[in-house]
Amino acid sequence: MRYVMTFSYDGSNYAGFQIQKNKNTIQSEIETALFKITKQRIKIVGSGRTDAKVHAIQATAHFDLVMNISSEQLKKALNSLISKDIYILKIKKVVNDFHARFDIKKKEYFYVINMGDYNVFERNYALQLNKALKIKKMQKAIKDFEGIHNFESFCKKSKGETDFVRTIFETNIKQKEDKVFIYFVGNGFLRYMVRNMVGALIEIGLEKREETDIAKILKNKDRKTAGVKAPAEGLYLKSVSY
Amino acid sequence: MRYVMTFSYDGSNYAGFQIQKNKNTIQSEIETALFKITKQRIKIVGSGRTDAKVHAIQATAHFDLVMNISSEQLKKALNSLISKDIYILKIKKVVNDFHARFDIKKKEYFYVINMGDYNVFERNYALQLNKALKIKKMQKAIKDFEGIHNFESFCKKSKGETDFVRTIFETNIKQKEDKVFIYFVGNGFLRYMVRNMVGALIEIGLEKREETDIAKILKNKDRKTAGVKAPAEGLYLKSVSY
Repeated sequence: MRYVMTFSYDGSNYAGFQIQKNKNTIQSEIETALFKITKQRIKIVGSGRTDAKVHAIQATAHFDLVMNISSEQLKKALNSLISKDIYILKIKKVVNDFHARFDIKKKEYFYVINMGDYNVFERNYALQLNKALKIKKMQKAIKDFEGIHNFESFCKKSKGETDFVRTIFETNIKQKEDKVFIYFVGNGFLRYMVRNMVGALIEIGLEKREETDIAKILKNKDRKTAGVKAPAEGLYLKSVSY
Repeated sequence: MRYVMTFSYDGSNYAGFQIQKNKNTIQSEIETALFKITKQRIKIVGSGRTDAKVHAIQATAHFDLVMNISSEQLKKALNSLISKDIYILKIKKVVNDFHARFDIKKKEYFYVINMGDYNVFERNYALQLNKALKIKKMQKAIKDFEGIHNFESFCKKSKGETDFVRTIFETNIKQKEDKVFIYFVGNGFLRYMVRNMVGALIEIGLEKREETDIAKILKNKDRKTAGVKAPAEGLYLKSVSY
């Protein structure tokens, strides 16, 4: 039987979602708990990697299980065994050819910036910028990311990667007091893509760049022209839709 | 010259404010940084202890310094040297007989409870109760703490302690969606007093106790009748006034 699980995690103390040798990852934490329950080595296939320190509100993963246990029992058992940094929200049976990564229709990320004073309680949960941003300029600029584009300028190329075209369905920037929330909804995101887009938007907000720069950078297809990658701690995977 | 500093800290990874042998405390963290700057062992006198894992929005401490450095320079130097869990908000010169503990006029604490689903991002910042509370019953009950009372039932006695009378000036309980915020303003608080008061209020909110119980427990002067101490992670020292 194939199952899909939805889970949230505080990535502060993790080297990202995906298993890496000798590193603390979300995947290894969940797989270790699954082993304790099933006594079998079960591999979970995640909706994607996240970078070290990045958080997830609702990430997904699929896995196969030959065991007579209800989804609810499995959820309870997993939550009692995994670290308190991770919480399994839901587990449900799916068709056998469901794939947590290949079947994604839509992925949503958001990024949080604190423009106000340094806040000890948010040090792992928002970029502590401590500077005012010109939000209207950023709101205008972010619209140039919407649509189908080659995002070569905004990613770190993985070995052998040749397809840099992705579709951004929707973007949004909201301000609430000293906090800025930047949203991206798309069909997929390349490595560091959200952090690189946010980095360019911050430079626009700080008036180090023109608000018309995004279209130019996209056209350049050159990472070097796109500016600085925003730090990981402000980034959240919000949801994955199939 | 005597100085008073105001600072906030995320207590999650600390054994409380006050220095303890072989333990990570807020006081030792600040004193270590002061030593790096001044090359002198400077003792800071805090507004009070806080328990392990308890947070502070604005705690205070005084210390004496013979050194020609401006408050602003000292603040910058300290913030660059201490852990990111602590942030010095302000340093100012005070009269030589100012005392950060003895001169307190008013102290304010609040406690945060999440009645909703377990939230990974709040595991160190709110009690994850995962149960609904009868807020109106708690709001009625908390008023019995106001005024001058012997709080022997609501504290852990320290050796030789004989004065259990404290004044609570003001209390309040606010709900915002699934969150409950419980406020106490008083002239001083005994060890575990806020956590014990919150513990009794939670039992009232869960209808394990009558809303009229607080007055009875105060009268008993017996810790055993007051119920369970609420966990540390939901507690914040909000401010200290002189």
